[in-house]
Amino acid sequence: MNYAIILNVLGNLLRFLGLVMVVPLLVAFYYGDSLLPFAVAILVTGVLGIVISYRYEAEGDWKIREGFAIVAFGWLTAAVFGSIPYLLDGITPINALFESMSGFTTTGATILQDIESHSRSILFWRNMTQWLGGMGIIMLFIAILPKLSVAGRQLFRAEAPGPTEDKIKPRIRETARILWTVYVAISAIQAALLMLAGMSLYDAVTHTFTTMSTGGFSPYAEGIAAFHSPLIEGIITVFMFIAGANFALHYRTLYADRQSLIKDNEFKFYTLIVLTATAILTFSLWNDMGENILLSFRYAIFQVVSIVTTTGYATADFNMWTDSARIVLLAVMFIGGCAGSTAGGIKVVRFLLLLKYSQNALFRSIHPKAVKPIKFNNKTVPEEIMQAIVSFAVIYVMIFAVSTALLSLLGMELISSITASIATLGNIGPGFNAVGPMSNFDVVPALGKLLLIANMWIGRLEVFTVIVMLTPEFWRR
Amino acid sequence: MNYAIILNVLGNLLRFLGLVMVVPLLVAFYYGDSLLPFAVAILVTGVLGIVISYRYEAEGDWKIREGFAIVAFGWLTAAVFGSIPYLLDGITPINALFESMSGFTTTGATILQDIESHSRSILFWRNMTQWLGGMGIIMLFIAILPKLSVAGRQLFRAEAPGPTEDKIKPRIRETARILWTVYVAISAIQAALLMLAGMSLYDAVTHTFTTMSTGGFSPYAEGIAAFHSPLIEGIITVFMFIAGANFALHYRTLYADRQSLIKDNEFKFYTLIVLTATAILTFSLWNDMGENILLSFRYAIFQVVSIVTTTGYATADFNMWTDSARIVLLAVMFIGGCAGSTAGGIKVVRFLLLLKYSQNALFRSIHPKAVKPIKFNNKTVPEEIMQAIVSFAVIYVMIFAVSTALLSLLGMELISSITASIATLGNIGPGFNAVGPMSNFDVVPALGKLLLIANMWIGRLEVFTVIVMLTPEFWRR
Ligand SMILES: [K+]
Ligand SMILES: [K+]
Repeated sequence: MNYAIILNVLGNLLRFLGLVMVVPLLVAFYYGDSLLPFAVAILVTGVLGIVISYRYEAEGDWKIREGFAIVAFGWLTAAVFGSIPYLLDGITPINALFESMSGFTTTGATILQDIESHSRSILFWRNMTQWLGGMGIIMLFIAILPKLSVAGRQLFRAEAPGPTEDKIKPRIRETARILWTVYVAISAIQAALLMLAGMSLYDAVTHTFTTMSTGGFSPYAEGIAAFHSPLIEGIITVFMFIAGANFALHYRTLYADRQSLIKDNEFKFYTLIVLTATAILTFSLWNDMGENILLSFRYAIFQVVSIVTTTGYATADFNMWTDSARIVLLAVMFIGGCAGSTAGGIKVVRFLLLLKYSQNALFRSIHPKAVKPIKFNNKTVPEEIMQAIVSFAVIYVMIFAVSTALLSLLGMELISSITASIATLGNIGPGFNAVGPMSNFDVVPALGKLLLIANMWIGRLEVFTVIVMLTPEFWRR
Repeated sequence: MNYAIILNVLGNLLRFLGLVMVVPLLVAFYYGDSLLPFAVAILVTGVLGIVISYRYEAEGDWKIREGFAIVAFGWLTAAVFGSIPYLLDGITPINALFESMSGFTTTGATILQDIESHSRSILFWRNMTQWLGGMGIIMLFIAILPKLSVAGRQLFRAEAPGPTEDKIKPRIRETARILWTVYVAISAIQAALLMLAGMSLYDAVTHTFTTMSTGGFSPYAEGIAAFHSPLIEGIITVFMFIAGANFALHYRTLYADRQSLIKDNEFKFYTLIVLTATAILTFSLWNDMGENILLSFRYAIFQVVSIVTTTGYATADFNMWTDSARIVLLAVMFIGGCAGSTAGGIKVVRFLLLLKYSQNALFRSIHPKAVKPIKFNNKTVPEEIMQAIVSFAVIYVMIFAVSTALLSLLGMELISSITASIATLGNIGPGFNAVGPMSNFDVVPALGKLLLIANMWIGRLEVFTVIVMLTPEFWRR
């Protein structure tokens, strides 16, 4: 393992983090908030970043192990140093780390009990960490994971706009630049539309941060419900849906082939899931709760898109809905958005391929000697990719089960344990009961918080990146 | 499709069913119960069986499709005709079918509200259907499924005492005879031990019926708790554990190699699961409920073995335990017993192989070019078997999710929906809350009962057998 390279990258990450913290510092200055939290954070993060990145010169190339370590410790480092402003705002260390990890992983689970009691600048930083996390995820999916052969690399590589396998290294910067341009451009459009719909600049920017990253933090306790505006809900629904789709396809749609999205198997299935779940939820809300059908649809489509894309915004306290409505949300929590988006979860493409694989097995059970390949976007899916996808799903479900069991053993009620586990592992944010959208995660015991921090970290990094470091093979030699 | 062969086998099955119903008729005679329910059932079933089996002569050999159809419709036929005595006992048609399917699939979920109000002979028949279902399952696993290449045939074939692939046909009878001898012999030992422990002949036989089949029905509302005897609980625990292990290995252990069980990877993992879950549950009961540690252990080991083996007996109302205790039971509900046993569920061997497959994928993510086969009992597991196992798990979980969603949409509470689904699909019997061990399934709405009947049927027949008939390929040509 080339530790120098890892430390060099982490050092550069700290420098970058110190630099971007200047933005909330300016916000604090504008609103007359205390400058101390950000000034100290910038100093600590920036100086340490400069020292480390100069002390450890980058030599040679990343190999697979270094790649895993950089990604995993990169997110951890961002979460740890990003929590400094919270600490100086008086939040306890474990809660500060929880909130910061929830930000950088775009989870949106919060331990803040009275959100609006915190300063505008702290809440700005909180939402901004999600936008930065979203950038990191796009980078990870399109540029790094394909190189690390994690959980279906060729699939994601095929979707990337530029690079081919042998040319990835020199093109990482270029790919990242292209995709971030798309990310920033769509963000700018959303913020402008939200302002046209009546939001202040502050509200528009902070909510754009957490829509595009499918993060779900809001500076208001009520979340999107605070605005009481169908127009704002509509805009946010559209942009959540965009953020939950593959950014490489967005790039292609904008710059190459207008039909890129519509032709994509994953995008079609993603749309189908959203429409089906919305239809069922609309019916359920209308039937059970005697709501007006249009109002039911308004709540249903917003909440389904919010959960499928793993954003986690709420326009209603969906925890108070009947179980026949809650089950729809619980079911889609396990799917998540598309690969190459900022969404978390198992991802639509994996889900789709597991279904195709099973259908194929049924076919083989009648025709044992027939060979029928599994296709995705008209290309045959190789066996090693299926293995990676299957194993992802198995490990994901195992972590979910162990996490649920541990939370229950720590004394949490069953539904809260189940949904707290999937909401953090899937980077969704809110769950049901004790961790519902109008509650917060501060009720979780301290050990449980550490567990959920690990869930967010593992879930965000496509599971393998973290779990592989627990195998003896990773550290051997 | 050769319908004549299918009908011929089903006709013979009905003749057999009509014949064995003479046993509860004799019980009814002995206890002075009404003879009508069994007399009518014998007449209808027997006559129809004779007519059909003579009308449709068996010609040619089963092919794959015929095999699937015979197994699936065989269980359905048994459930339908086995429900006649319940109907004549005054139970509604849907409830009678539910109880009968629950019997023949060895599930043990009941719709009887006041069990002890029913006659001794009806309750005898109810338990006997489970013992017959258990016989059917052993036959299915060891003799039929290997031929149908379902969900890992070579694995199970390897465990069967006699046949090799090309010789299966002539040996089905022989294999079945050997295994049923083991089944009957172990049953006789259990019944004798239960009588020595103080049970009446009736109680010993009926409870042996539902232990060896991992069925879980009892003629008493309180189940095994009715006996208040640690000795009886101990005997039943041991025999549930035996019934949840592979009967082909029991045969080998008895007649060939004493170490057959101990050397088997699946049996080792099965034992590990039971011990681990018992340890956690003992601690949890002791910690949460202030129970004496020995009493906690007594409850814990009985309940863990009962649920892992998918028997479903209870010595306590485990639904009243805290969620930290209930989570242990919920977790093992998804695993089930060993292949080739009478237990249901995903099965330990599939679970073990999914773990090995995932571990292998983690290894491959660090060493992309290394080839490392997956081993089970020192043999390499071929790719098509892994696909069958993975697909089994995917379809199983999908059915579980859809079933849970449908029950919730029908208005059932979430935990009840979750556990009713897994308890029927895994052929366990009781779940939590509305369908807890001291409650019954009569609270489920009629549509929900039909769904759960389907769950029991699908789960018992290793999923593929039923699901494959829903594919267009099955009916083509
Ligand atoms: K989120
Ligand atoms: K059972």
